[in-house]
Amino acid sequence: MKVIILGGDGFCGWPTSLHLSKVGHEVIIVDNLSRRNIDNELEAGSLTPISPMGVRLKAWQEISGKKINFYNIDIARHYEQLVQLLDQEQPDAIVHFAEQRAAPYSMKSSHHRRYTVDNNINATHNTLCAIAELGLDTHLVHLGTMGVYGYGTSGMKIPEGYLDIEVVTEDGERIPQQILYPPNPGSIYHMTKTQDQLLFAYYNKNDGIRITDLHQGIVWGTDTEDTKRDERLINRFDYDGDYGTVLNRFLMQAAIGYPLTVHGTGGQTRAFIHIQNTVRCIELALQYPPAKGERVKILNQMTETHRIRDLAELVAELTGSEVAYVDNPRKEAAENDLKVDNRCFLEMGLEPTTLAEGLLYEVTEVAKKYAHNADVSKIPCTSVWTKEQKAGIPQVKEQVTSNTGKT
Amino acid sequence: MKVIILGGDGFCGWPTSLHLSKVGHEVIIVDNLSRRNIDNELEAGSLTPISPMGVRLKAWQEISGKKINFYNIDIARHYEQLVQLLDQEQPDAIVHFAEQRAAPYSMKSSHHRRYTVDNNINATHNTLCAIAELGLDTHLVHLGTMGVYGYGTSGMKIPEGYLDIEVVTEDGERIPQQILYPPNPGSIYHMTKTQDQLLFAYYNKNDGIRITDLHQGIVWGTDTEDTKRDERLINRFDYDGDYGTVLNRFLMQAAIGYPLTVHGTGGQTRAFIHIQNTVRCIELALQYPPAKGERVKILNQMTETHRIRDLAELVAELTGSEVAYVDNPRKEAAENDLKVDNRCFLEMGLEPTTLAEGLLYEVTEVAKKYAHNADVSKIPCTSVWTKEQKAGIPQVKEQVTSNTGKT
Repeated sequence: MKVIILGGDGFCGWPTSLHLSKVGHEVIIVDNLSRRNIDNELEAGSLTPISPMGVRLKAWQEISGKKINFYNIDIARHYEQLVQLLDQEQPDAIVHFAEQRAAPYSMKSSHHRRYTVDNNINATHNTLCAIAELGLDTHLVHLGTMGVYGYGTSGMKIPEGYLDIEVVTEDGERIPQQILYPPNPGSIYHMTKTQDQLLFAYYNKNDGIRITDLHQGIVWGTDTEDTKRDERLINRFDYDGDYGTVLNRFLMQAAIGYPLTVHGTGGQTRAFIHIQNTVRCIELALQYPPAKGERVKILNQMTETHRIRDLAELVAELTGSEVAYVDNPRKEAAENDLKVDNRCFLEMGLEPTTLAEGLLYEVTEVAKKYAHNADVSKIPCTSVWTKEQKAGIPQVKEQVTSNTGKT
Repeated sequence: MKVIILGGDGFCGWPTSLHLSKVGHEVIIVDNLSRRNIDNELEAGSLTPISPMGVRLKAWQEISGKKINFYNIDIARHYEQLVQLLDQEQPDAIVHFAEQRAAPYSMKSSHHRRYTVDNNINATHNTLCAIAELGLDTHLVHLGTMGVYGYGTSGMKIPEGYLDIEVVTEDGERIPQQILYPPNPGSIYHMTKTQDQLLFAYYNKNDGIRITDLHQGIVWGTDTEDTKRDERLINRFDYDGDYGTVLNRFLMQAAIGYPLTVHGTGGQTRAFIHIQNTVRCIELALQYPPAKGERVKILNQMTETHRIRDLAELVAELTGSEVAYVDNPRKEAAENDLKVDNRCFLEMGLEPTTLAEGLLYEVTEVAKKYAHNADVSKIPCTSVWTKEQKAGIPQVKEQVTSNTGKT
């Protein structure tokens, strides 16, 4: 089928584009390269040497014989360009990764809060509006986040998007209903994804758009089978305090002999998925679209849950690093349990890559191999969630010397 | 107290500004005059002759001896101006009316859908972001809508914002919870108000902002005690297919001898409130703010419910008009019941103005008095909710001659 990948230059979008191209889809990438511009802003680029889009696509064509087209469009700003492209291409499906996706970045300042809301809501709304305006029967697959659910408020297993409830009336009558899982986002970024859900529900109800919303866990790993085929195809690896996910941060810290910094008690439990599984899930979501007239299909895209301090211990064991506990920049519960239903993807045929399997590759082939590119000063998270926290930006409690020569 | 009214030039904002000024608050109006610009766009202005802001404020000062300051700021676009104003004024409260508020207008075209989402979300977010950035203890009062609830899905009485539910776990255990009432908006406009709710919940939780969200019914009536004091203070009366609420449309149609056009079966039940009660509710909401640390306070701002065809019959009886049934441009249930809990405002001291009391004044003193200003062609709703409906834009089934000389 013909698939447009919005945000196809990013950490998830790029390997997804290659995977879908490899399995036989006609892939078109739309991206405004905003993630690379944010690298410039933060003065913290990918640890791995990512190539410019033109080089990436040329390499892919040499190696796979397949062509991917690329359009540099800011879909949140330039609606007419988006409409024109969709009208011209009439895609069978659109995969929408084109949102600012880092919680700490979204909390850095008013500017970053405002950019995240404005960019994410308009990107999603413009896409829906364009599909409705053109009357396309395009299947929209969106990357949501496990973070829309909040973490462990009720102790129950989180279902795939919808919650069975009983409404108790004044007369004590119990009325069974199924509702969107009540949102409880932990950052402005996560909040925008809960607003996206309302956009999807509305356009599905009013305009009949077929939508799959994937609530994804924290993605770990760098390469997929496809990005490994040539260094020009390598995927990004973010280790900075804003875009580096917790596991990548640990790997990087281990590689350069820096203590693994755990925020708070490390009692937070989170859901995880390997990047190779991410691209497979998108393939499966495209293969099993909702039927015409069906409500928004919501799937939990994750394979395992871990407590952060257990992750730190795991990486420490593997690498001989120390663990350092620092203040938590986030406003969140110190400890939580997390049980998540992910039967849908398993039933479709997803075979999970476990942390135990993939972690050593990440340490040796990515973090250690490219450690000379690291800027240690970018590792701590300097974004804070509230004004009260600004007084005490979290710091590693003891200074260590980096083995990279940089500081 | 010092109160900033965002959107203080509009149909609800203007009489609220006067009322709050009269009862002794220091009032500052912020408005970008977008509603007047939309009059220009739609070529359909207020039936009543509204004065420019400068004339309005001069008249109010002459009559009441009180000064209201005015700032022309687009708060969705010019964040820095908003921050500067809030920093300078340090208001005790902000009343936020500054959103595009017509469902049909929000559905006219892609442009109107996109404007409504972009304007409303950024206006609300900028306001919250500015309060958080400045660390103000300002109470934010927002005008929401009964439309966030959807209409009559469960047959239960709609509570004030939060719903008591029981979550049923896999083991059959029942866990009681209180959640935001599950939204079910009927237009892009209403959808933006459900997105606003997520913004409020987040900023309340993360930044401790004190917020009251008023879910208002359909406002009817034109004048308040204050706007009646001088013709230069007169409030807007919208009768066009986009901004005219259903009752105003009936009044106008009656005044000019046009059949009262009922959409579909007229079996839709809606909540209503008189404009004099609206301004009193805002006064009460300011008087009883939520405490520091309290969650978002949600109140239902309405006084009675009516079925649309009953309203038409009531106006027809009062005026001798006919009732005409036309196709429904909206995608909604043909018939619904609606029971709404509104105890909070009644307990604070609200004394409802009933339709039976106020309707004759509207017919004689407003609709008939200014009928010569009407453009009959603007009365039908020409916005449609879906592409399928575009083929058959609703029309009055028999043409009638207007007694105004215009067509």
